[in-house]
Amino acid sequence: MAELVGNLLVGQSGGPTAVINASLAGVIQEAGKHECIEEIYGGLNGILGMLNEDLIDINDEKRSTIEGLKHTPAAALGTCRYKVDFKKKPEKAAKDMDRLFEVFAAHNIRYFFYAGGNDSQDTSHKIHEEAIKRGYEMRVIGVPKTIDNDLPHTDSCPGYGSVIKYCAATVMEVAADVSSMATEEGSCCIIEVMGRAAGWITAGTALARRSEADAPHITLMPEIPFEEDKFLAKVKETVDAHHYCIVVVGEGLKNAAGEELGADKTRLDAFGHPVLSGAADALGEIIQGKLDTKTRTVKLGYAQRAAEHFASLTDSKNAVACGEAAVRAAIEGKSGYMVKIVRSGNNGSVQWSTGLQPLGDIANVEHFVPRTWMTEDGFLPNEKFMEYARPLIEGEVKVPMEGGLPKFAQFEKVRVEKKLSARA
Amino acid sequence: MAELVGNLLVGQSGGPTAVINASLAGVIQEAGKHECIEEIYGGLNGILGMLNEDLIDINDEKRSTIEGLKHTPAAALGTCRYKVDFKKKPEKAAKDMDRLFEVFAAHNIRYFFYAGGNDSQDTSHKIHEEAIKRGYEMRVIGVPKTIDNDLPHTDSCPGYGSVIKYCAATVMEVAADVSSMATEEGSCCIIEVMGRAAGWITAGTALARRSEADAPHITLMPEIPFEEDKFLAKVKETVDAHHYCIVVVGEGLKNAAGEELGADKTRLDAFGHPVLSGAADALGEIIQGKLDTKTRTVKLGYAQRAAEHFASLTDSKNAVACGEAAVRAAIEGKSGYMVKIVRSGNNGSVQWSTGLQPLGDIANVEHFVPRTWMTEDGFLPNEKFMEYARPLIEGEVKVPMEGGLPKFAQFEKVRVEKKLSARA
Repeated sequence: MAELVGNLLVGQSGGPTAVINASLAGVIQEAGKHECIEEIYGGLNGILGMLNEDLIDINDEKRSTIEGLKHTPAAALGTCRYKVDFKKKPEKAAKDMDRLFEVFAAHNIRYFFYAGGNDSQDTSHKIHEEAIKRGYEMRVIGVPKTIDNDLPHTDSCPGYGSVIKYCAATVMEVAADVSSMATEEGSCCIIEVMGRAAGWITAGTALARRSEADAPHITLMPEIPFEEDKFLAKVKETVDAHHYCIVVVGEGLKNAAGEELGADKTRLDAFGHPVLSGAADALGEIIQGKLDTKTRTVKLGYAQRAAEHFASLTDSKNAVACGEAAVRAAIEGKSGYMVKIVRSGNNGSVQWSTGLQPLGDIANVEHFVPRTWMTEDGFLPNEKFMEYARPLIEGEVKVPMEGGLPKFAQFEKVRVEKKLSARA
Repeated sequence: MAELVGNLLVGQSGGPTAVINASLAGVIQEAGKHECIEEIYGGLNGILGMLNEDLIDINDEKRSTIEGLKHTPAAALGTCRYKVDFKKKPEKAAKDMDRLFEVFAAHNIRYFFYAGGNDSQDTSHKIHEEAIKRGYEMRVIGVPKTIDNDLPHTDSCPGYGSVIKYCAATVMEVAADVSSMATEEGSCCIIEVMGRAAGWITAGTALARRSEADAPHITLMPEIPFEEDKFLAKVKETVDAHHYCIVVVGEGLKNAAGEELGADKTRLDAFGHPVLSGAADALGEIIQGKLDTKTRTVKLGYAQRAAEHFASLTDSKNAVACGEAAVRAAIEGKSGYMVKIVRSGNNGSVQWSTGLQPLGDIANVEHFVPRTWMTEDGFLPNEKFMEYARPLIEGEVKVPMEGGLPKFAQFEKVRVEKKLSARA
């Protein structure tokens, strides 16, 4: 394999996580070891910034800032939800591709890394194919990232271990609170977590259960259609037994007709999905109305995916490893792959490594919680899921403190001089 | 002062906090040093359990469990919202008092400690007065507890430092997330925190601000009537400047007519207050509707007051000190007081100690954030507030971990044999 000399461009895309910056640190630190990589550029706000030629020079950042990315939530480069949509907007997509390759050529970008979820891996895949079609020599590797844990072929997705560690701890703490107030009248608390289509986060909160009596007592996953009567019977049974009931619900919970309980259909996001917000409130109203049991709700929202102060060290290390592996793969001449996480060993002593999967296998394929990993009644994950999830939350990221609050790293963002005229 | 020999009864009341168990540990550990205190009993679910003679023997608990209370959220003895209400239900209240003193006499209770907020201090005050009236020798000391920080005469309330430490960190993390996604379209995130009447928690999140540009950009406190036009102008100004805006709102935010934005008036709690839930959602609808700015909400709910995993060490130490001081005061012959926290020194080197305040000065008096501690436009606390709040969040409680999640202490709850017939 002939050595490819040139510059590196890295971007971050989609919803941030507690460890997407750890992957960025992995890319940057690994890139620094290879002389064929000359400049290291970051694209601001993902593809959107790259189209506008908004690049920063990462060699102008302090080494301590790069290391600090490993305990900094959100996307240090900024992120976007912009999609190069060849299906729905083929003309605009073709124009975007032309512009992207103008930017790549203008800055001699030969190594391209993009951290993101399904849509972002699709973007990387298209860029890889376009590079071949255009005869532009560039190596493209996708870095996995999503709290939703719904990318196929990888053991797990960086971001997932941290979000379930935080959410499970929150369930334990809320359960301690609610149970300590529980009297014969009974009470219920519903905790809403993220997960539009897949119930990975919802299921992950079951790690809070150290005994049969422990919360969460019910987990409602978007994969399993909601049946009101069965649910109310289970809530009543739980309140009768323990005087309280903790329910965790994924934001995208649907009824048998496929309608989301908490969807407000008048609001759409950039991808045309309905914005969800109210699954917990919808359930709370059902419980109060039908069972007359006092019910309160918690909606963690963005707080869950940004909760660096209780992030998983295992997750963070895997995220760094994915960034490093992406660079090594590209140096070895690979292109058109996503890095994946590979697990070996059993529950007691799991070892982690990385592998590669063709981007064509990833893009727009969603990975759901297997039905066989849930109890028969569908209200909790079973031991198969627990064995899978437990190793992902091991260890805590140490965040430096200043005045009793976390101290995060921040890029200075020294801009790379623009070489093109503004995007049309 | 003649030595009073007998048993001790301690209870916990009202909404739990991250450190109410630390106060309990303080009471128990201090009591163990004094021979005149023979048995140490805990009342389950506060006054409610005491009325039912549901007592546990704390001498049967492991020493490690007592120490573990210092890193365990919620109320280890259970709590209640039961009120001995002489005003509205004088006959029932008189009957309750008769029963309580039967229980006290049956178990030779001579030391009574009750940790709680306004209503609970009122209960302690009534018990103290009744003991004198009945000629029953018993020393009654209230232990302060409330995340709301609204007890008068004390520098601060145990529970408050922890809740604002967690909420401020959450604001920092959510702000990192939202700002990293911010594009020219702008976006807004509204974080709802507890505080029905007082804005102490809302104001405390401003500790997240390390520079003028930092979140929270707007804090909306229940003390300051909400003005929609002024608010929308401020949101727009912030989004124009930073492309995003983080708003923190106290659940009890009211308009000029005194109506709560998020109140659902059909639901009432045990004290007859309307249950609040939707201030953030109400604001979100206003912003989306009037400014067309994408808005998301976070509702921390019970998670904030139970967040042991990021509790303040200063708060925890003060909570322990309050429990210890209560016992010492009683041993010295005092009765009818609440322990208060006293601060000396300045911002750089604050020292903490405790004092005593007559319960009659405390009960049912609410302490609000002074208007002079807010900026002129009322949208943020000023430096006077910050100087007050900063020392309260110093240090982190170390919670032991097991399998990547917190390990909390739990009482075995060995029951004290009942000596009375069941409560009528």
